[in-house]
Amino acid sequence: MEKMDTAGFSGFWKITVWDQEGLQGKKQEFTSGCHNVFESGIESVRSMRVESGAWVGYEHSGYQGQQFILEKGDYPRWDAWSGNIAYHTERLMSFRPIQCANHQESKMSIFERENFLGRTCDLCDDFPALQSMGWCNSEVGSMKVQSGAWVCYQYPGYRGYQYIMECDRHTGEYRHYREFGSHAQTSQVQSIRRVQQ
Amino acid sequence: MEKMDTAGFSGFWKITVWDQEGLQGKKQEFTSGCHNVFESGIESVRSMRVESGAWVGYEHSGYQGQQFILEKGDYPRWDAWSGNIAYHTERLMSFRPIQCANHQESKMSIFERENFLGRTCDLCDDFPALQSMGWCNSEVGSMKVQSGAWVCYQYPGYRGYQYIMECDRHTGEYRHYREFGSHAQTSQVQSIRRVQQ
Repeated sequence: MEKMDTAGFSGFWKITVWDQEGLQGKKQEFTSGCHNVFESGIESVRSMRVESGAWVGYEHSGYQGQQFILEKGDYPRWDAWSGNIAYHTERLMSFRPIQCANHQESKMSIFERENFLGRTCDLCDDFPALQSMGWCNSEVGSMKVQSGAWVCYQYPGYRGYQYIMECDRHTGEYRHYREFGSHAQTSQVQSIRRVQQ
Repeated sequence: MEKMDTAGFSGFWKITVWDQEGLQGKKQEFTSGCHNVFESGIESVRSMRVESGAWVGYEHSGYQGQQFILEKGDYPRWDAWSGNIAYHTERLMSFRPIQCANHQESKMSIFERENFLGRTCDLCDDFPALQSMGWCNSEVGSMKVQSGAWVCYQYPGYRGYQYIMECDRHTGEYRHYREFGSHAQTSQVQSIRRVQQ
């Protein structure tokens, strides 16, 4: 289990989950992270409503497997949270709140190669197509998050595998694509955006 | 066929398409809209690389069916452009360039009800979760685009059905969800962002 920085989290974050699609079936509310939904009496999560705050959902318990950013709104089916079709994740097994920065204060750096080497670029805005702003290839070797939380995506337009990057985790340092997430298989990253509270 | 405002477009936009996944098979380059790829000697488009400019791809010929925003980068498989899994679109049959505004000058208004009625809100930034900024429900009844091009999505986090909204089309006015696109079945819109050149 990863370290949870939940100090000051309670009272703001709220998510309602159901064990069936369409916001139906057995229902439960959470105001903090859930390491394993099964232990909370739900076999798996198949739909949800984020009431407040930003969350990240995981394919497996213990905050493992594919990651899915969850912002305020309704997620009636798995295709609402997943942009990855090659590898389906129809149910979530764990989820936790994310600490964001003020939208204008989010900042991160991307590097061409692992261990913060090669060409670099500072980001403080959303980039649906990294190559449009002059990034020369379809890969990012390593990243440092100075402020806030970000989502990186495999494909342009916020599609494909998602990697949630936070300044509160890994001390904001992601030195190799294997640190992007337990599901990362390549360093392909073609769009990046800030997480909105 | 819809009206094409292609004046001044040539020389900037460029897309390369292939009839097989993985940027393989029969290949063709385009610098302006393609009404029907079949007439250009390709049975259907299964992968592509946007070299410059922003484009919109369509499920059917004649710029009909599901719409997919295409920004600079690689799209090796259909899941790279589609966030909709309930209704697969594994190949594209037409595509065209999009005229964007300077990122900072994009502006649109959303309305609670059709025909620009009810509560309204002006947007000039990206909103991965409309409800986070106080929009009270998961639907948008009608929209007016004052400047630039925008993508609206069915679900939060830029997922689900996509609707490309342009100030150059429909005089920027989308009075009813049926005008959002030929594939629109509801007025459910939970995230909106600007298109980046």
